[in-house]
Amino acid sequence: MYNNLIQHILKFTPLTADEIEQINQSVSIQKVKKKTFLLEAGKVCKSNYFVVKGCLRLYFVDRKLTEQITQFAIENWWITDQDSFDSRQPSQYYIQAVEDTEVIYINKDALEQLYISVPKLERYFRIIFQRVYTAWQRRTKFLYDQTDEERYRFFSEAFPGFMQRVPLYMIASYLGFTPQFLSKIRAKKV
Amino acid sequence: MYNNLIQHILKFTPLTADEIEQINQSVSIQKVKKKTFLLEAGKVCKSNYFVVKGCLRLYFVDRKLTEQITQFAIENWWITDQDSFDSRQPSQYYIQAVEDTEVIYINKDALEQLYISVPKLERYFRIIFQRVYTAWQRRTKFLYDQTDEERYRFFSEAFPGFMQRVPLYMIASYLGFTPQFLSKIRAKKV
Repeated sequence: MYNNLIQHILKFTPLTADEIEQINQSVSIQKVKKKTFLLEAGKVCKSNYFVVKGCLRLYFVDRKLTEQITQFAIENWWITDQDSFDSRQPSQYYIQAVEDTEVIYINKDALEQLYISVPKLERYFRIIFQRVYTAWQRRTKFLYDQTDEERYRFFSEAFPGFMQRVPLYMIASYLGFTPQFLSKIRAKKV
Repeated sequence: MYNNLIQHILKFTPLTADEIEQINQSVSIQKVKKKTFLLEAGKVCKSNYFVVKGCLRLYFVDRKLTEQITQFAIENWWITDQDSFDSRQPSQYYIQAVEDTEVIYINKDALEQLYISVPKLERYFRIIFQRVYTAWQRRTKFLYDQTDEERYRFFSEAFPGFMQRVPLYMIASYLGFTPQFLSKIRAKKV
């Protein structure tokens, strides 16, 4: 039923038929249209979302009322406001569909229960967290460390498909481009 | 032998005497003087460090030759360049002792082996990664979202002891203060 998720988990740990069944019973599937919000600031982030198809973005609105995108999730990526999800406190983030998107999601209590009943998921999520933490660490560094043009070229080469799927202003927010550089890209001067 | 680490793990998962023994046989302890480097850019980050006593900082040198501190670790925190540690590629970061520091450390192969022989550690490190990821996510947000003064006040109230232990210029690097604001703090105008 939730084949994409199970296939992804199986890349990191074997599962018995019974464990697969327990996972399937703990998650739900949802199809959302482009621009739908799965999370809005002020509300508790109740779910962790696994993208089956499509693209989600995680962002907050800074004090200058500018959207600051801190993470994207495409196929086989998880996305949530980890802080709100863990603490059950209201989030300061938004999660929005960049395209028509299909997600498999799990709620906090169901996930905590699954960690107990299917301990192999500790390994799966340990590796997932390790990767998302590394991605976050990389982004932080290259926001400080590279010019707009270097970031643009690196990202274009590393994720060519992704660059085609996401509006340029979102890429610019995620990569911290100046408006001047954004104009250069639009004018095809890069 | 490595009591602080075992006590910390026991907060998150029970361990048998045999599992404790296996962990003790896989880690090592090291005392380093203030300013000692545990990692330097250009070298592979071979260890993950658990601070028993003291304080470590993780930073890189940006293209303007400015030190950018992205993480601190005090007692009961882990610190490493996760990217270099996982990929075994040369790091772009430095890990340096801010005080005379005692660490328990584990190398990549030993840790991967421990995950197999003591699977309960998957839970422990899953929770550790979840927390470090959340801390990173929070810092990213408040670097964009708060004024220098708001960040200074928040950090002073949240971690009063820490503020006393670490040189102000390091706090300023971590919290992204402007030189102007740093001068205001030094002049006790905040």
